[in-house]
Amino acid sequence: MRKVAIYGKGGIGKSTTTQNTVAGLAEMGRKVMVVGCDPKADSTRLLLGGLAQKSVLDTLREEGEDVELDDIRKPAYGGTWAVESGGPEPGVGCAGRGIITSINMLESLGAYEESEGLDYAFYDVLGDVVCGGFAMPIRDGKAEEIYIVVSGEMMAMYAANNICKGIMKYAQSGSVRLGGLICNSRNVDNEKEMIQELAKKIGTQMVYFVPRDNDVQRAEINRKTVIEWNPEAPQANEYRGLAKAIDENKMFVIPKPLEIEELEQLLLDFGLLESV
Amino acid sequence: MRKVAIYGKGGIGKSTTTQNTVAGLAEMGRKVMVVGCDPKADSTRLLLGGLAQKSVLDTLREEGEDVELDDIRKPAYGGTWAVESGGPEPGVGCAGRGIITSINMLESLGAYEESEGLDYAFYDVLGDVVCGGFAMPIRDGKAEEIYIVVSGEMMAMYAANNICKGIMKYAQSGSVRLGGLICNSRNVDNEKEMIQELAKKIGTQMVYFVPRDNDVQRAEINRKTVIEWNPEAPQANEYRGLAKAIDENKMFVIPKPLEIEELEQLLLDFGLLESV
Repeated sequence: MRKVAIYGKGGIGKSTTTQNTVAGLAEMGRKVMVVGCDPKADSTRLLLGGLAQKSVLDTLREEGEDVELDDIRKPAYGGTWAVESGGPEPGVGCAGRGIITSINMLESLGAYEESEGLDYAFYDVLGDVVCGGFAMPIRDGKAEEIYIVVSGEMMAMYAANNICKGIMKYAQSGSVRLGGLICNSRNVDNEKEMIQELAKKIGTQMVYFVPRDNDVQRAEINRKTVIEWNPEAPQANEYRGLAKAIDENKMFVIPKPLEIEELEQLLLDFGLLESV
Repeated sequence: MRKVAIYGKGGIGKSTTTQNTVAGLAEMGRKVMVVGCDPKADSTRLLLGGLAQKSVLDTLREEGEDVELDDIRKPAYGGTWAVESGGPEPGVGCAGRGIITSINMLESLGAYEESEGLDYAFYDVLGDVVCGGFAMPIRDGKAEEIYIVVSGEMMAMYAANNICKGIMKYAQSGSVRLGGLICNSRNVDNEKEMIQELAKKIGTQMVYFVPRDNDVQRAEINRKTVIEWNPEAPQANEYRGLAKAIDENKMFVIPKPLEIEELEQLLLDFGLLESV
């Protein structure tokens, strides 16, 4: 089983990209469990056809420790499983700890057992790796393969580089590796070339370039992935392409994050920054 | 002195909106200190004309406790002050604690003293109020007046509602109040009316509607706010309008966050969600 975590700047489209890609993997016959690690519990909405009714932490709070696997793991699109770790009350406690509680609970209930036949576990993790809490899936070896969603917007690239620092830190003592950058296009000029160059400098690859397409939003309004909403849509093929690229990926590296000056030079080279 | 915190979903444009608004306040003659509370330390870039060289936490790590106010507070556009709290190493420790360390340090060094003549302290806080760390400015009474940046995108509205839950929790025992929603337009259909309706339901106001304009990005490429980059640009006037609306605001409430069903009904009413 491959244990994959998706990171990236807030608002970059991590949950959307993850779910659309998972739909592609499901279509290929892969068995996938998606674990939403955002306290907002909105990471599996498109696979479930609506927001999850109850997160793992909600369930634990309401039912105590006497929980069954089916209480926290819901059947979703194409034979996938959807789990939302949930979080503490807004503004109280450490959200990262909820992630570990949830993963430990899934482990002890046997969700990762051989008999479950999982090909993939996907962790959709909130925001940048800013604090120890959200780095937990990396720290504790729960995720071994990281993809970073990025665009050609400066702050998204800056966040991606920062996430690489977190990965590098834990890669040296553990098994976590970077599988590549996923460019979720914002129609920035020269975006593809720039992200390819960023990937190269970091020592990784741009595993796929996802073009911007309003069909993604149209599908979301209907609470669906593009593949489910309109299998014939060109964007559905893009997500199939991304799913295939991940499925066939063999390039797993310890990233070499850039110094801020190198990153700014890249932005200057591609016209995203004017020299002072 | 008014103590203002800006919250909102990751990627919604909090830092951009904050800095452009602060430039408007500075132009009105207000004395403002901006405290970036994002571990990425990118909240004051447009006011400083480049990324801050060193955050408060960096300075503390390198120079110990023997820090002067000028080491951590930098002069920025139009007589404003810029501070970046910074954060722990990516992936280690609680990022929220860095915020409190920084604010306490600023207090003990006299940055908020009467003699400094501050009209405003602005806190630009990372992401949603997801964990106790990032709620700290609200919890400890460091910020008394909250504005939430939102757009007509579903997840931005969902995050805004979640932030209201955090505010409500601490408003009951403390002095923090919601000053309003700032709509940072994404050109969603009926966006203005929808955010006005959301504000009304929450018991607050849409304090300003900021139209989408590529001049914001053009100014950013030049490391400037729109007001500094091109004072004649129409968008500069929009930020002046937002600055004035905040300066004259008298509506401070304890928000009444919506139940998820109410929020989904609003989205259905405005066509952002299809009924199942």
